[in-house]
Amino acid sequence: MMTFTELLENRRSIRDFKDKTVDLETIKEILQDSCLAPSASNGQPCQFIIISDKQMMKKLSDESKKNILLDFAEGKQSSSPNYVDILKSEKFNVFYNAPCLIYVVGSKNVRLLDVDCALAVSYIMFSAVQRGLGTCWINLGAQIRDPELKAQIGMPDDCRIVAPVIIGYPKAIPAASERHAPQILRVIS
Amino acid sequence: MMTFTELLENRRSIRDFKDKTVDLETIKEILQDSCLAPSASNGQPCQFIIISDKQMMKKLSDESKKNILLDFAEGKQSSSPNYVDILKSEKFNVFYNAPCLIYVVGSKNVRLLDVDCALAVSYIMFSAVQRGLGTCWINLGAQIRDPELKAQIGMPDDCRIVAPVIIGYPKAIPAASERHAPQILRVIS
Repeated sequence: MMTFTELLENRRSIRDFKDKTVDLETIKEILQDSCLAPSASNGQPCQFIIISDKQMMKKLSDESKKNILLDFAEGKQSSSPNYVDILKSEKFNVFYNAPCLIYVVGSKNVRLLDVDCALAVSYIMFSAVQRGLGTCWINLGAQIRDPELKAQIGMPDDCRIVAPVIIGYPKAIPAASERHAPQILRVIS
Repeated sequence: MMTFTELLENRRSIRDFKDKTVDLETIKEILQDSCLAPSASNGQPCQFIIISDKQMMKKLSDESKKNILLDFAEGKQSSSPNYVDILKSEKFNVFYNAPCLIYVVGSKNVRLLDVDCALAVSYIMFSAVQRGLGTCWINLGAQIRDPELKAQIGMPDDCRIVAPVIIGYPKAIPAASERHAPQILRVIS
């Protein structure tokens, strides 16, 4: 049982995983923990799609890559321009070699959906670390627009994807990426 | 030193605080922890304004209440309609009796600012619990529009408030609010 300090020290964005499946019960336990996250007016709007089928993950990766590149071609930025080159590579799978993908989705009508889902994702991240698992929020995997594919993964029409989160057993815990000190603009006491 | 399970069990939205100040060093430690939160492309866009002056908190509460009510009058919803009545009460301070308010803000140009800040806020929430403190994300306190007041709290023009978070020593840990089981739409394995 890790302490908060250990969780902080061990939580990393993980993009390289052992070839080991994560069983569904473990994923469900983690999602159960995430339900304890606060949400605006306790609305609890998060819904989850769990995908561990590699072919489906490849399909979703291809769909999202295609749409982000289309957006760039049209001058819209649905992702950082830093990723254009890598997205053009056919071999690049946005979900890396992860054994499992969780889409955190919710109704387009929820005003603070992004925030509510992000809070739940932080719970998923910590709950995963606690179980020896690693996660990464893969924004490059969020642009699923093909109605048929959306139906295949069970996305209701009124929903949108907020967070694609990959999860698995990390090959290693990478060094911490650099962090600056908190930027405190003003203290009024 | 709490375990993650204890953090989960003890984290509540706190709106009733002891009459005890939180010292600035503690707030800074908590913000330091929040810098370990992941952010899109490690952009670390969160900036912080710390306010423990009660008069300033009252001013900010009044400003935000006024703007939310104006929005409602104009048919815009910057908050849930459930709050209209209480917002009309002159005595109601959106920050309750909290000894301290942290505004988590960031540049309007950051595409995933809401998500980046929400992840940092979850770290603030857990780091606070770890120190015997309680927090609450007060969305009703976010609508600060008066340029003079924004200048007084040190808000740069290109920034917007994502999260007003109150923090202090809880009078009590309230019972957990009800949570439903995780809504899993589909499992594709």
